[in-house]
Amino acid sequence: MEFTSEQRLNDGVLEREFTLGEIPGILWRPASVSARAPVILIGHPGGLPTMYPRLAARAQHCAAEGFAAATIELPGGGNRPRLVAVEEARTELRRALQAGEPVGDEVVDRLVLPLVDQAVPEWRAALDALLSLPEIGGPVGYSGGIIAIGVRLAVVEPRIVAALLFAGSFVPRAMFEEARKVTIPLQVLLQWDDEGNDRQQALELFDAFGSTEKTLHANMGGHTGVPQFEGDDANRFFVRHLR
Amino acid sequence: MEFTSEQRLNDGVLEREFTLGEIPGILWRPASVSARAPVILIGHPGGLPTMYPRLAARAQHCAAEGFAAATIELPGGGNRPRLVAVEEARTELRRALQAGEPVGDEVVDRLVLPLVDQAVPEWRAALDALLSLPEIGGPVGYSGGIIAIGVRLAVVEPRIVAALLFAGSFVPRAMFEEARKVTIPLQVLLQWDDEGNDRQQALELFDAFGSTEKTLHANMGGHTGVPQFEGDDANRFFVRHLR
Repeated sequence: MEFTSEQRLNDGVLEREFTLGEIPGILWRPASVSARAPVILIGHPGGLPTMYPRLAARAQHCAAEGFAAATIELPGGGNRPRLVAVEEARTELRRALQAGEPVGDEVVDRLVLPLVDQAVPEWRAALDALLSLPEIGGPVGYSGGIIAIGVRLAVVEPRIVAALLFAGSFVPRAMFEEARKVTIPLQVLLQWDDEGNDRQQALELFDAFGSTEKTLHANMGGHTGVPQFEGDDANRFFVRHLR
Repeated sequence: MEFTSEQRLNDGVLEREFTLGEIPGILWRPASVSARAPVILIGHPGGLPTMYPRLAARAQHCAAEGFAAATIELPGGGNRPRLVAVEEARTELRRALQAGEPVGDEVVDRLVLPLVDQAVPEWRAALDALLSLPEIGGPVGYSGGIIAIGVRLAVVEPRIVAALLFAGSFVPRAMFEEARKVTIPLQVLLQWDDEGNDRQQALELFDAFGSTEKTLHANMGGHTGVPQFEGDDANRFFVRHLR
């Protein structure tokens, strides 16, 4: 992990860009840290340069509760080399959605599974590097992004003790079996009137999770209209489980 | 409205029992009130004497945010005269549930509609009396209890500006049409693994509400296992809308 730049945001949060091999990432640290801070991994749909303003805002919100936050670029996202097969599947999916046709399981598999398979080991490697820094401690939370990546991480990465998942992207059928193996506390966000998302599938996925503590928060406002108060609710969820 | 008793609870909340004609009720007021407090109507399934500990706890939780709280006995509940037809319907419904049989719409109608028709004018009369007290102001929230009563109140009572509804009881089909007419902000609690409740019906009801701001909170823990943190979430919902 090599730090490539460093700046203080206006609330005093220290933001540092880094690379982990070929993978760019960002680490945010609260203005004042007395001990090793818990860290929240901030998921996203890919494309750090365009996602940056929203990611920084989420990180600053976490920092207000004393949490560090970190993210890395997804395989094929931002300035990383394209994943041709994934791009093809994405184009097919968009064509189906625009034509009002049903989205086939096979397209979803070709779009999401390679991302999950490549991204999850990268996030785990990033976690290794983050937890070796003197200012970062456990426990670790995971928040948002492509839900299938969050599900796989929740199953395979024992250092993640709580996850906030955004049920806003397509889920390969195979992930439902993995969901049953999730046992950590979950908070699942669902935009009830999300045009591009399958609400019934999201409810089935919530049902499938094996966790005894799981909470679903459904709101109105469309895919990008998650209400502001859910940011506070997310912090309280992590305060309950990371402190 | 005649006050019949008065006591200070251990957190300083002033609890006063009253009668409104034949209807018993309880009013709770925060320990210190500088101005006329907003008031939250606390719903319940009927039976103040047995429900009292839980109702007082909810009222004290509201009072911690500066809200007054009030409740009245339901028609046929507690020490009020039985409603024979309603009791018969309840017995039939329990028999069906215990036998694992589907619950007929007609039984639900006979159980719930008379309660809604009688209770709603009583709650409105209680509100008239409460708002004439010098220490109680608006705005008014409604919280919990039999969801069909909350739905009807949200439609017909303009002084109620926000409602927290518990999707934990049977809903007559006719109420779905009324739900479409609800426009105030809603927070709907659903116990995902509530054995005696129809989850699909609860989700359909949430979908039917006409409110542009509506939030569903689903949790595990069975009918009576609403997590403690939902009490805090309820307060934050009312703080957003009653202050």
